[in-house]
Parts: sequence; structure tokens; C-alpha cells
Amino acid sequence: MKAKTLRRRCLVDKSYQLSFCLVLLLSHGFVALLIGFWASWYYLFFFDRRLVHNHNETFWLYGLAGVLLVLLLVLFWGVRQSHRVAGVVVRVNKELENAGRGVFPPGPVCFRQRDYFKWLAPSLDATLKHVQREGAKLTTLRLQVAGLEARLATGELQKPEEVLNEVQRIRQSSEN
Amino acid sequence: MKAKTLRRRCLVDKSYQLSFCLVLLLSHGFVALLIGFWASWYYLFFFDRRLVHNHNETFWLYGLAGVLLVLLLVLFWGVRQSHRVAGVVVRVNKELENAGRGVFPPGPVCFRQRDYFKWLAPSLDATLKHVQREGAKLTTLRLQVAGLEARLATGELQKPEEVLNEVQRIRQSSEN
Repeated sequence: MKAKTLRRRCLVDKSYQLSFCLVLLLSHGFVALLIGFWASWYYLFFFDRRLVHNHNETFWLYGLAGVLLVLLLVLFWGVRQSHRVAGVVVRVNKELENAGRGVFPPGPVCFRQRDYFKWLAPSLDATLKHVQREGAKLTTLRLQVAGLEARLATGELQKPEEVLNEVQRIRQSSEN
Repeated sequence: MKAKTLRRRCLVDKSYQLSFCLVLLLSHGFVALLIGFWASWYYLFFFDRRLVHNHNETFWLYGLAGVLLVLLLVLFWGVRQSHRVAGVVVRVNKELENAGRGVFPPGPVCFRQRDYFKWLAPSLDATLKHVQREGAKLTTLRLQVAGLEARLATGELQKPEEVLNEVQRIRQSSEN
């Protein structure tokens, strides 16, 4: 029980968290290998401890270019990776805000193919549908009550049994 | 206009995405520095190209231990980092599913201090409150209509003006 609680707390969404960790390990491993090879290459082929000054300045230029390239790759990958997360959250926020103002998406909410947390779509959809349906029911019922009031006020409905039938009809239609 | 669209598409949530990239760059830079220093240390103090076989096997053990430690650190950090994202999404999903079943949190939704996307809380709260309020209104109105029906059926309400007053009361109370 203790182990299960701990596991549930550490990995709340296994698929996302494990793939995130795997990709992190791979990218750090790649950088480590790259730097390791680069350093080996330097010390095996360029470095000469008999010289006080190293004349191979192009080596450092290449190295700097390599580091910049790797940084750019990491940056590019970071933006893409974080977008796959943030896009979903921003979309959910937008749909929730719209729902609060009574605006609903025309169809089911779809996330992009490569987004994480796509499993959020069904419950978001269900909630939006629920809000929309309940809102529509409330509006219909209010209109029906207002209509009944108008017909009573104009004297169109007078007999008790007619009124009862009408109220029954309204009550039944509101339960569907 | 073009630039703005592109920017909006790349960085949908600046604060999260930029901090994610910064942390990625720092951690990759840290690993790169570590491996660079380690390789330099090896080639400057241990490596001897006059020997065919290297006798310093403890060096490799230390190196292996270091790599494992860094991998563990990356893994630990990855789980924590991804939890700060996944925790929010899992919580949002839970609240949405609960709302669909008519279960609402007792107070406003709070995320943990270190979670990302904490700005999602207000719109989630507003939607939950909206759903709850609309649901309560619908239930109340249905009960009032059912009560009216019962009173008409038992003959408690008979006079047209009494019925009209009651319907007016129901209509007004449903509009608040």
C-alpha cells in the first residue's frame, strides 16, 4: 500500500512522465558522448603538452560552432517539446473560459497528433456537452414557465384541468 | 502580423516554455562541462600513450559511478519536472470528470506551489462554479414546477389569480 501510494505520487501520468525521462536521458547521453568524443579527439590528435601555446585555433572555432549547434538543437527541441504540453493546457483553458461565457466548440475537441495528454479530450468534451445541455434545458424550462405565465395572464388558460395538463407537460418535457 | 502568428504558435505559454528551455540548456551544459572536465582530467593525468594497456582501472570505475550518478540525477529531476506538469493535467481531468457526474470540490481548486500552469485554476474554478450553479437552478426550477403540479392536482390551488401568482413567483425566482 505504501509503495503504491508513493508510485502514484511520483508517476501520475506514466506514459508522459516515462517518455519525458527517456528523452531526457537520451539527449543528455547524446551531449555527453559528443563532448567525450570531442575531448578525446582534441587530446589524442591536437593537444601537445610540449607546446606552451596551442596553434590549432581552428579547432576551438569548430568546437564553439559545435557547442552553439547543440545549444540551438536543444533550444529547438525544448520549444517543440514544451509546446506539445503547453498547447493542450492553453486549449483547455480557452475552452473552459468560452464555456463560462456560453460559447461552445462546434464539434468534439481535438488536440494535435503529437500533443501529450490527448486523453484529456473525452472528459473535456463530456463536461462541455454537459454544460451545454444543462444550459439549454434551463433556458427551455424558463421559456416554458414564462409562456405559461403569459397564457394565464391573458386568460387563455383558465380551467384548472387545462392548467394542470399544461404544467404536467412542462414537467415531463423538462425531465427528458 | 506574420511574425506575431509565428510567435504565438511557437510560444503559447512563454513562462513555462522559456523556463523549460532554460533548464534544459543549463542541464545539458552541466553534463557537457562535467564530461569535458572528466575527459581532460583523464587525458592530462592518466592517459599515457606510451602504454598499450592502461592500468588505472579505478579511473573507469569512478567514471562509471559518475555517469550513473548523473543519469540518476537526470531521472530524478525528470520525474519531478514532469510531475509538475502532469499533476495539473491529471487534476484538471479529475475535476472535469467529477463535474460531469455532479460532484464538485468544496472550495476553489488549488494546485501545488511548484506546479506549472497554475493560471489554469481560475478558469477551471469559474467553469465548475458555473456548472454547479446552473445545475442547482435547473433542479430548483424542476422541483418548483413539480410542486406546482402537485398543488394543482390536489386542488390546493384553484383560482386562476392564485395560479398566476404562483407561476409568476416561480418565473421570477428562476431568473435570479
